[in-house]
This record gives sequence, structure tokens and C-alpha cells, in this order.
Amino acid sequence: MNGPHLHRLANGFTIVADPMDSVGTLAVSLHVDCGARHEEARTNGLAHLFEHMVFKGAGGRNARQISEAVENVGGYLNAFTSRDQTAFQARLLAEHLDLGVELIADLVRKPHFDAGDLAREKDVVLQELGEARDLPDDIINDHFHSTAWPGQAFGRPILGEEASIATISVDDLQGWTRKHYRPEAMVLAAAGKIDVGQLVELADARFGDMEHAPRPVPQPAAYAGGSFVERRRLESAHILFGYEGVSYFDADYYPLMLFSQAAGEGSSSRLFQSVREDRGLAYSIGSSVSAWRDTGMLTVYLATARKEAQFATDLSRDLMREAAAGFTEQELARAKAQIRATILMTLESVQGRADRMGFQTLAHGRPLATETIMARIDACTLEQVRAVGTRLLERPETLATVGPALKAAA
Amino acid sequence: MNGPHLHRLANGFTIVADPMDSVGTLAVSLHVDCGARHEEARTNGLAHLFEHMVFKGAGGRNARQISEAVENVGGYLNAFTSRDQTAFQARLLAEHLDLGVELIADLVRKPHFDAGDLAREKDVVLQELGEARDLPDDIINDHFHSTAWPGQAFGRPILGEEASIATISVDDLQGWTRKHYRPEAMVLAAAGKIDVGQLVELADARFGDMEHAPRPVPQPAAYAGGSFVERRRLESAHILFGYEGVSYFDADYYPLMLFSQAAGEGSSSRLFQSVREDRGLAYSIGSSVSAWRDTGMLTVYLATARKEAQFATDLSRDLMREAAAGFTEQELARAKAQIRATILMTLESVQGRADRMGFQTLAHGRPLATETIMARIDACTLEQVRAVGTRLLERPETLATVGPALKAAA
Repeated sequence: MNGPHLHRLANGFTIVADPMDSVGTLAVSLHVDCGARHEEARTNGLAHLFEHMVFKGAGGRNARQISEAVENVGGYLNAFTSRDQTAFQARLLAEHLDLGVELIADLVRKPHFDAGDLAREKDVVLQELGEARDLPDDIINDHFHSTAWPGQAFGRPILGEEASIATISVDDLQGWTRKHYRPEAMVLAAAGKIDVGQLVELADARFGDMEHAPRPVPQPAAYAGGSFVERRRLESAHILFGYEGVSYFDADYYPLMLFSQAAGEGSSSRLFQSVREDRGLAYSIGSSVSAWRDTGMLTVYLATARKEAQFATDLSRDLMREAAAGFTEQELARAKAQIRATILMTLESVQGRADRMGFQTLAHGRPLATETIMARIDACTLEQVRAVGTRLLERPETLATVGPALKAAA
Repeated sequence: MNGPHLHRLANGFTIVADPMDSVGTLAVSLHVDCGARHEEARTNGLAHLFEHMVFKGAGGRNARQISEAVENVGGYLNAFTSRDQTAFQARLLAEHLDLGVELIADLVRKPHFDAGDLAREKDVVLQELGEARDLPDDIINDHFHSTAWPGQAFGRPILGEEASIATISVDDLQGWTRKHYRPEAMVLAAAGKIDVGQLVELADARFGDMEHAPRPVPQPAAYAGGSFVERRRLESAHILFGYEGVSYFDADYYPLMLFSQAAGEGSSSRLFQSVREDRGLAYSIGSSVSAWRDTGMLTVYLATARKEAQFATDLSRDLMREAAAGFTEQELARAKAQIRATILMTLESVQGRADRMGFQTLAHGRPLATETIMARIDACTLEQVRAVGTRLLERPETLATVGPALKAAA
């Protein structure tokens, strides 16, 4: 592996490319450094509604023409909005790189933003919100975030809420473009059967004339923790608890990944073995790690029979503490092998490779060499892993439940 | 591409292999020709509970030791049960092919089946069932199947129900093995960085001594149709309607895939453009095709605000009829390009390639050459696509709703 190429245009727009000779398709995606955490309370949901609205018409094509342009050649477009990122993805056969870059550039640089379209797309987002609320394993994430980071942009829901969605105007969409869609906030990432020289030329032609401007810095996330219950008549209790984690810049980022892997990811983990295999208390049980520029989280999700919910939650909490205290060399070796293999498998996927590289470049300014990451993981010691687990579990807990009410940590 | 290798052992056990030089990992999976449709009513859920139970202990390893054996080297095991298939999958780095074949062979040939483990695993499956019932977009599939194919094995839920799960004994598990886990019902499929000769040797050593025995033939599926409503307090109405489709042996299989693609898959489809883009009635809206040995289905799923549910369903039904009558050359060309590209993208994935090949071999006795499939898709005419759409939409409708009650088709 030669590793990815990086090219930065004069205006700060960044291109990363990782050609793969063995495939006949490509993935190209634009990653933009703005998401729900950049919103004001009044217009919560704007980043996500923006992401929807650009597909209603851009660069002279209406919604149908955008869809047909990419689907006529067997490709497809996708997009997502997170707390700190908006991404637009095209998946295409190799010969259509130019079309992919053209469509993505049109979406973010030449959206039409019609008031009638906006009214209709608000209806679509309200439907999306209704669906998300019907899925307990989906909506529980919003409850967790709003409790962990209360009264601030970082804790607000990505989809927004009825009242905030209603207030969003065409002016707000245009203001959002001006403020956030700036060249130094953008990374174009492409993997698969691509020519790097052609990609850079296409990107320069489509994005090279964008003007640099200062970017607004989002309010730092201030973790609080606490508990939240949404009582609902369900067969199971759905429970998400956790702690503030670490930033992806933190030296403890890889030790924390290893801790979560052994404590609660995979079927050999402590949570799976004890809660599911030994006691049959849950079908879904596991931990995970998320990280952002200035904060992170370590969470455990489980769904369990209502009558067992308190016991299963207390047990899971105890298991996490025991993992922090009693993490073994054998668990460390296994967790390292698992994370290494997962990275290799991701890099074998065209889409996985583009997404990973785009995200890294948005976060770190450049793609991280796989060898460097592997070396950092290898270097983690038992003491580091135990220490980060112990330290995080001493922080205030956040507990979100959909179903019955539960007691928070003692 | 040379295409996959096929090797059949003397006892009928089949091996298919598709080496990919460009990757460093592999996927190996065992596909077994038995699922929920092979069950008796008394033991509904047995195929799925069997799939769970083999992981509780096999070949001298307990549940923890099975998990650790594969996760110590960064791999993972997975399994699923459908109406007509049970599959066991291992994903590993290239050097661990032998371990993958050993573990899968142990799971299906040397399961321990302890009564205490069975009691605990029934609890896990009940938790899984509770979770599935909490997700309207999941449980609606069971409602659809039990209405479309009532009073027969093909219509029963894959997870089973409380009463049927409760009756399943260790004897039932052992009987299931004897009846269904026979060499001619099994396909071992491997893709990625593999040596074909080594795979055949490993398979011969682990499966070559199995004894051939007559296989029970499942009851043919007899479609009826009808409507089913589960009233539930939700934000959205979740609706799944459709018609009996065609078998994967049917000459209309590819024309039907093209019909569904243009009518309801992708963002350029008629359903997406009309229901979502033009009217903002739904976030999730789309059609899909499923096919089995003796039947199939063409379905439309949508989630919409309760007050719009009747209108959105009637509109979707009309759009399907209009698609059958008015399918255009342009839609045909686009649908062909989309299906061709989707196949190419699937074949670039190690897991996708193994799964596709294993499924085809279980169904057709051999993997289908990609060129042959592409040629069949290319050969489909506008008349064929219109004809299959028109014919299926004249069949009795099945309508399943979670949320409010709706009127069935006029």
C-alpha cells in the first residue's frame, strides 16, 4: 500500500485520493466540517434540512434530473448529517468520476432553494422524525445526548424538532451556505478505480474558485450527565448508559477503543459473555466509543425484558467497572487483533476507504497512515487501558431509558 | 474474472470458491438448505433456535471458547436464519482459513446441546422477539407473511412464538440435525484471499465423512393474501403491501427485478419521486422483490403520518399500476444500468461475493456466471417488464399495517 495522496488547493480546499487497481468502481464524497453542533437553537435541524434541500434542485437540474443523472449510469447519491459533519457521497462505475464531482459540486455550490420545495421537504423531515421516534433504539440516542450535554448545541437532536424546523427559511439555508460551505472546511475524498491527476483537475475546476473566509468556531461541548426516562408501552426496556469519553486528539483514544472492544464489543467481550451467554438477559448488549474534536463518549446499549431491566443495567455497570480494574493481557492481545483486522477489512471496501480517509482528513488535516495507527494500537499497554477505563467510569453517568423508569448509578 | 470454482464431494457436499488476489482477508460461509419453512407448527422457531444453540458449545469448546478462538485472531463469526436457509459465516485474515472451516464444521456437526444452555438461550430468543416487536418496520414483515401465506410453514415467523419456543427440547434439536444437516443440503462458499486446493482439502477432511440421506421436501407455499392490522400508538403509520411474485427459477425473475427497480427502488423511481419528492408524504418509501424456490413477493413499504396513511397507500398502489402500464424504454435502460452496477459493487466485496455465490449454489446447484446474468438482464424487453408487472398486480393483495387501520385495495 502506498497510502493516500493529499492535494490542497490554494483556497484551502483539500483533496484526498486512494486509487485501488483491483476494482472497477469508485466512491467519491465531500466531507464538510459543519453539523448540528454549529446550529443556533432557533434553527435546530438546519444542517440536516440543508442536506435534504440541496437534492431538491441544483446546478440547473431539478430533483428528478439530479436522481436521473446519477441513476442513468447505475450510480447512486447519498448524504448524511452528524453532530459535526455533513457528507455527500456518490458511488459510481469508474468511468463516471467527472459526473460524481460535478453533481456533488452542484449540490453544495449551486442549490436552488425554492420556498415551495422547502415547505414540502419540511414535511419529509417531519416524517423522518416521526419514524425515528417510533424506533426506541434510534430515539434513545437523542435522549442520551440531550441529557449528557444539556442546554447546548452539542446536545440538540440532529433532525431538529417541529418548532425549530418550522422556523427555517430560505434565508437561513443561504446563510448556512455562506457561513459553513467554505473551501477550508471541505475535503473531497475518492477511493477505487480513479486517476489522481484527473480527480485533482476536476476538483480544481469545480471548487478552485471558492473564496476563503473565516469559519465560525462551535461552542465547546460541556458534559453534565444525568438521567432521562421516556415511559412507553413496549415489550422490552431499551437502555443506553455511559460516560464522557475522550477526543480523537487525545492520547487515550486508542487505549479507550481497546477497553471498549474487550469490555463490550464482540461475542468474547465481558458484557456479551456475562449478560447474554451466562444469564440470557439480553439479545442486544454491547459497548461503543464515539469521539469528536473536544469530547467523546463511552456507552453501553442493552434491550432487556422490563422486569429484568434494573438488574441487567446494574450488572452491566458492574461489569464495566470490573473490566477497568481487571483488564488482562489476554484481553488486550485479542482487542488489538480485532481492531487491526477491522481496519484491514474496512480498507478493502471502496466506500469504507473513502469515508475513513475523508473523516480523518476533516479531523486531522490529513489521512492517517495505516502503519502509524497500527503502531499506536500495538504500543498501548495494559496500564493505559486500565487507567482510561477507570478514569472515565468515575465521571458522572448519563442514563437514558425508553420503557420503564430505572435507578441511576449509586 | 475467471469466475468461481465448484467442487462436489462424493457425498454431495458442495464447495464453491472465488479467490481474490487483491485482498488480505477472506469470508467463508456454510449455507444450509433449511429454515423456518421446514418446521412443524409445534416447534416453530426451531431452525433459528438451532442456529443460536450451536454457538453455546461445539467440538469440545464452550460458548466462550468458540468466541475466543475466532476473536483471538481478529476474526468474527456470524449466522442467520431465513425462511429457507440457515447460514454460518466467518470473516478472517487470510492465514486463518483452516480455523474458519474447523469452527463452522464443529458448529453444525458437533454441537453439545445441553438442557441448561437451551433454557438460557430460549431467554435470549425471547428477548430478541421482544425487541423485534418493538420495531414496527421489523415486525410488519411477520404480519405480512402470516397474512400472505396463512396456516402454513411458509407464513410462520422465523423467530417462532412464546409457546412454540417453549416446547423445543434437546431431542428436537438433535432431530433437526439428523433431518436437515445432510451433505447434499450444504454449500461451503469462500471468497477473498484463499487457496482453492486447500479449501477443498479442508472441506473434505471436515465434511467428507457425512452420510447422504433423503431430505424432507417442504410443503409448497400457497399464497392467499388479505389484510392485517396491528393497532398501536405510534407517530407514523407503517404499511407493507404487495403481491405474490415469482420464483427465482421463473423466466420472469429478471423482468420483475427491473420492474421493481424502476417503480420503487432508488431516488429516480416513480414511488420516490411522486410520494416523497412531489408530495412530501413519506421519508421511507420503496418497493422490493424477494424470491424463493416456489414463490416470491413484490412489496411496497412506506411510513407516513397517520392522517395521510390512507391517501399515501392508495397513491402508492396507483403508482405501481401506472408503472406496469406505462413503463418506458428510458426507465428500462436506467433499471438495467442500476442492477448491473449493483452486481459489480457486490462482487467487489469479499463478504458480498461469498454470500451471493453460496446462495446461488444452494438455489441453482452452482454459482451463476456474472456474464450470464448480465446477458439475461440485457435481454429483457419492455413488453416482458410491463407484462410481469401487470400480471402480478392483478393477484390478490396482502396489506399489513402497524398503527391505524386502513382500507384494502378496492
